[in-house]
Amino acid sequence: MKLYSYFRSSASYRVRIALNLKGLSYDYAAVHLLRGGGEQLTPEYRRVAPDGIVPALVDGDLVLRQSLAIIEYLEETHPHPPLLPGTPGERAYVRAIALQIACEIHPLDNLRVLKYLKHELGVTDEAKDAWYRHWVENGFHVLESMLAGDPRTGKFVYGDTPTMADLALIPQVFNALRFQVDMQPYPTIQRIYDEAMRHDAFVRAAPEQQPDAQ
Amino acid sequence: MKLYSYFRSSASYRVRIALNLKGLSYDYAAVHLLRGGGEQLTPEYRRVAPDGIVPALVDGDLVLRQSLAIIEYLEETHPHPPLLPGTPGERAYVRAIALQIACEIHPLDNLRVLKYLKHELGVTDEAKDAWYRHWVENGFHVLESMLAGDPRTGKFVYGDTPTMADLALIPQVFNALRFQVDMQPYPTIQRIYDEAMRHDAFVRAAPEQQPDAQ
Repeated sequence: MKLYSYFRSSASYRVRIALNLKGLSYDYAAVHLLRGGGEQLTPEYRRVAPDGIVPALVDGDLVLRQSLAIIEYLEETHPHPPLLPGTPGERAYVRAIALQIACEIHPLDNLRVLKYLKHELGVTDEAKDAWYRHWVENGFHVLESMLAGDPRTGKFVYGDTPTMADLALIPQVFNALRFQVDMQPYPTIQRIYDEAMRHDAFVRAAPEQQPDAQ
Repeated sequence: MKLYSYFRSSASYRVRIALNLKGLSYDYAAVHLLRGGGEQLTPEYRRVAPDGIVPALVDGDLVLRQSLAIIEYLEETHPHPPLLPGTPGERAYVRAIALQIACEIHPLDNLRVLKYLKHELGVTDEAKDAWYRHWVENGFHVLESMLAGDPRTGKFVYGDTPTMADLALIPQVFNALRFQVDMQPYPTIQRIYDEAMRHDAFVRAAPEQQPDAQ
């Protein structure tokens, strides 16, 4: 398999964790999201992934896009260890938390959106940072209150082993820390992050461990 | 089952289509996203869905959140007719298109984001509308080029029957039309929308058919 990835991309980071947890080796193809206006927008990359978005995972003849769809694919083709629980209701719980991060927080704070705010709407750096923090903090506030009160929360989001929910959560926390979000109001999320930072599959997937890290 | 829904909510609309396609009946609980500052933010609704987001689907003891997680749940518990194809690679294709809409287009154009632009960043109505169109048009441009050139595209996104991808696409088109996005550059998307508008499950799920329609 070959993963097109950018070291700091949260969505790429999710898939790197999944591949590591499943024990799957892969070739790493770096796509620099800033260099030369963004290598993801070049004709070369668009021949792989016409949407110009990382990550993309190539598995034989298949080109897989969208991190959560890639993770579902890996779950179906390499079921062990499972990244989703055993019953439809519990799977829905884990998927909902992954989507809560992937649909409600991450899309508002990614690079192309921050660029639009700055260049098209002309907002100040201060207002751009406030925008970033607003969506992360709102999202983490809701998630913290849910996780803190749910008996399913263990060392990880669901029980004591990682699931798809952690694959979405950990990169979002990494991203928030880089933007100096104060994590003190989110002790459950912080605790899960600390747990993941002791787990080999998460450590090896971290941005600073990638070949294209700067 | 009981669906907490707002007639114009794209995410609610996705789940209504799924329920109709699966032939499942449900009670409709209207949650008005604007009235009184938003009924989704009241303590009453937060007791159902702590994230204050519609839709939520109650099935017995389970409270299900996040439209795509709900749809996966319905697919697992009521497999016929299927909303995903039979092989992992083809399922990944359909899921990726659903996520491309749910993660790359919809989150940037929903109500709370447009509100933040206006009230917190003080952008003009003109700039707000340009923001809306930018993300829809960029997203549709990429999707049109992908669908127009893919042999899997049929009457619907994948073949001649609806899949999860159509459940994401059709509400996004409805939303774009409401904001007067010119659909002329996206003939494949428009054709699929026209097809859906002749399909009973989509027609009955449309915003104007809901008990809370205005």
